[in-house]
Amino acid sequence: MTTEKFAVGVDLGATTVKTGLVAPNGAIVYQNKFPTNGWLGPQAVFAQIKISVDDALTHSPSTNISGIGIGAPGVVDNEGSVKSPPNIKDWHSVRLGNEIHQLFPTLRVEVENDANTAAIAEAKFGAGKQHPNFLFVIWGTGVGGGIILDKHLYRGPSGGAGEIGHISVDFNGPECNCGNRGCVEAYVGQRYLSNRTAQKLQSHPGSKILQLAEGNLTKIEPRIISQAAHDGDALAREILTEAGTLLGVALAGVMNTMDLRISIIGGGLSEAGDFVIRAIEESVRARVLKPLQPEIRVLQSLLGNNAGILGAAGLVL
Amino acid sequence: MTTEKFAVGVDLGATTVKTGLVAPNGAIVYQNKFPTNGWLGPQAVFAQIKISVDDALTHSPSTNISGIGIGAPGVVDNEGSVKSPPNIKDWHSVRLGNEIHQLFPTLRVEVENDANTAAIAEAKFGAGKQHPNFLFVIWGTGVGGGIILDKHLYRGPSGGAGEIGHISVDFNGPECNCGNRGCVEAYVGQRYLSNRTAQKLQSHPGSKILQLAEGNLTKIEPRIISQAAHDGDALAREILTEAGTLLGVALAGVMNTMDLRISIIGGGLSEAGDFVIRAIEESVRARVLKPLQPEIRVLQSLLGNNAGILGAAGLVL
Repeated sequence: MTTEKFAVGVDLGATTVKTGLVAPNGAIVYQNKFPTNGWLGPQAVFAQIKISVDDALTHSPSTNISGIGIGAPGVVDNEGSVKSPPNIKDWHSVRLGNEIHQLFPTLRVEVENDANTAAIAEAKFGAGKQHPNFLFVIWGTGVGGGIILDKHLYRGPSGGAGEIGHISVDFNGPECNCGNRGCVEAYVGQRYLSNRTAQKLQSHPGSKILQLAEGNLTKIEPRIISQAAHDGDALAREILTEAGTLLGVALAGVMNTMDLRISIIGGGLSEAGDFVIRAIEESVRARVLKPLQPEIRVLQSLLGNNAGILGAAGLVL
Repeated sequence: MTTEKFAVGVDLGATTVKTGLVAPNGAIVYQNKFPTNGWLGPQAVFAQIKISVDDALTHSPSTNISGIGIGAPGVVDNEGSVKSPPNIKDWHSVRLGNEIHQLFPTLRVEVENDANTAAIAEAKFGAGKQHPNFLFVIWGTGVGGGIILDKHLYRGPSGGAGEIGHISVDFNGPECNCGNRGCVEAYVGQRYLSNRTAQKLQSHPGSKILQLAEGNLTKIEPRIISQAAHDGDALAREILTEAGTLLGVALAGVMNTMDLRISIIGGGLSEAGDFVIRAIEESVRARVLKPLQPEIRVLQSLLGNNAGILGAAGLVL
């Protein structure tokens, strides 16, 4: 046992709740992972967070806990209400901090948008340490972002900044869940990538993707495509190169608008390999205004999936 | 004669140089307008600025001049270099302040991006007075922008922020001058609107546009389409409603990314009538994320074409 203060960092995702026990130096001494159960509604999600945090607390080397930080999907306003997170049923506006505080009355609870927490983690501990201004992108099930300006999180007037997934890259494109058309997420998010992969597998029966999905097309998800690409599968690389190029279209618009040069890509798909980071970078550089081109850089997250936990813990460390 | 200090505000546009003599209270006591002559290169543009400023100075009610402020197109970096302004030939990176200071050695000269100066003018004197956070859009020959956060100009790390005209709204769209594809400016800027109008006029021979262009299709420019729409011409309204809807696609991406709600539209096309402002607003509201929708507002500039002069003068007032 130690008397060092630990923080609980909860990375609430559309599919999984990941909780870590984080030391003040940023070391994750324990972490777990549970399903989010978003299709069962908010109460079920609170229950999963409770299970995940309880599990982490039983593994704490210290009883000295500084609090629970939560990175949540969707907009988190200045009052801590989490609004309309994608893929969680019947969740319109929930004061998530209050809800979780009721389950852990002795602990301080702070909530921030998951992409924002990951951006903070990247700025403090990761690929953003050298860069005072950057856009952080989470590319996994969906596409989210967080903006760091002059080493600080830019939350926007009401905390919603960084929602780059619903930038339209084709005004006439397919309708997105959000109501817009041609959102970049509708092209490079889970649903599209899985469908496109399933379609292409018909003419690529030898692809490693099929093997990783155990022959079951409904099992295809970004993690599997990313893994296959990482292992050198040509089809997976082709699909992710295309997707990275499209993601770059949206990022170029953000670079132009905000006068930024650096994008840091996190989330499951950022781990597919350097080729996908290069595909995004080439696309951004080709599409931004000329004065920005020489300084455009797209970097891979150095924290990987830990960025969410680290940034969330950072809210209460 | 008065001893009050006046500022010279120069609005350097792609087609015209407009210079105003501005009193400290924001009143423009004199203004003129000369062709930019951008196709003749930088030296010719300096000469036009000289003519325009000289003319303004001869009309000054006071010999007490605080300096010359210039709003210039293109990126203006932190050292005052104006980089790659569109539609000016052979202009890569020019220290415009130094060049003009050589022509007026006794006067202080300050340079800022034209859209940024107009945004400042709008925040101080115009439609932005009530709104601490907004995106200002210049919609005329091209599409530019300036971002006001917490009542201050957001210049970005190197002064290039607000370049929204080259946000792609169709990744597969027509190639733009800038090298990107499907830029919103390539859909709603002068070239496209003029071509589209000329094309549509073939089946609308009675349109007021043709009358204002004196029957000459090559004379069609945004000012004429705007004027015709203002006078109730159905074709002009149809074309600008379509364009406003497309402009809204790009603005929605900026609202989502930066967590903004307010857009203020200036430039020649903003004066076509309330219908075009409403078309932009409907498009933005339909396309932003749900939490932003109720607060989305698109406002018309209150300063109109004077925003450029007022903001430029503001740099030295």
